[in-house]
Amino acid sequence: MSDAPREIDALIEMMARLPGLGPRSARRAVLYLIQKRSVLMAPLAQAMADVARTVRECANCGNIGTSDLCAICSSEKRATGEICVVEDVADLWAMERAGAFRGRYHVLGGTLSALDAVGPEELRIPRLIVRIAEENVTEVILALNATVDGQTTAHYIAEALEGTGVRITSLAQGVPIGGELDYLDDGTIGAALKARKSF
Amino acid sequence: MSDAPREIDALIEMMARLPGLGPRSARRAVLYLIQKRSVLMAPLAQAMADVARTVRECANCGNIGTSDLCAICSSEKRATGEICVVEDVADLWAMERAGAFRGRYHVLGGTLSALDAVGPEELRIPRLIVRIAEENVTEVILALNATVDGQTTAHYIAEALEGTGVRITSLAQGVPIGGELDYLDDGTIGAALKARKSF
Repeated sequence: MSDAPREIDALIEMMARLPGLGPRSARRAVLYLIQKRSVLMAPLAQAMADVARTVRECANCGNIGTSDLCAICSSEKRATGEICVVEDVADLWAMERAGAFRGRYHVLGGTLSALDAVGPEELRIPRLIVRIAEENVTEVILALNATVDGQTTAHYIAEALEGTGVRITSLAQGVPIGGELDYLDDGTIGAALKARKSF
Repeated sequence: MSDAPREIDALIEMMARLPGLGPRSARRAVLYLIQKRSVLMAPLAQAMADVARTVRECANCGNIGTSDLCAICSSEKRATGEICVVEDVADLWAMERAGAFRGRYHVLGGTLSALDAVGPEELRIPRLIVRIAEENVTEVILALNATVDGQTTAHYIAEALEGTGVRITSLAQGVPIGGELDYLDDGTIGAALKARKSF
């Protein structure tokens, strides 16, 4: 593939499987690593091995961490009455960066998909129902992506939680902060108009 | 940065230093690695550690390999009379992928640059002059990038080799194979016209 020594070819091939990298950029990344092999490559290999060894999914919410319960589920500072349901850990991190939510999370690990044979069992939905009873939850916030799959999954969860008496909410849809109307899609403008409020 | 556990944050921070990855794509890559921690992350960490430990620069030509002399310099099948001078290992790999050159290489490791204080010593140019005598070289092919720095370096090397009696050539410039004139820059079209040949 690159006429590099076999070990380097193997490394390039693995790097090329990362999202955002292809064969060409993987080659470039590996050459950069080789140039910086003592200051970056060796520490990166070590950090990666450490994470691969220690990381695990939280038994309660599906977030990742280094112990059986993640930092959020084991924190006393996080409110137990509210659960924010997200598709994956990246979305959980995005919510945490926003710093606006002080409750706990439930990471589905994807969206329902008949095509990919992803059913409720694969998505930790039964576990969510158990948690609602166990943790005295009063509100479930569905923070799923505004995609067809995300919204299908949101509807499924809302139906599954009917009768539990818990309040079910979802993130507001509208114009993003700093957003310019000219650059927004029609769906967003339509949703924002429909949900307009008095000024 | 991402509200991830400290170990994961450290890994993201290091991944973000790779060319072609930024903070956001590094996060995405790390989450992907965590999902595939046994099939991809652990082997990748191992491959990276192996390469960091074993890779070294060829003492003769500057190519990378796993022993003191690279696979090309130690191959009996490669002609010794011709040396192809390239800027870096990525260019050497590109030449090898083309499969059109059966001689040996000399990897400069960059281009001359007054701004970055890169002089001939930093670029293995003295070593090139030694090799020309030692390896009975008859032709030096300057396969440097068609950039200002690349061409400045090519001119410097050509001058430095004056009087050695060796033939100095450079890659032809012209329309790339499959290239459409409409998409080519003026410089390329001008060079191709100047170097036109009878049909």
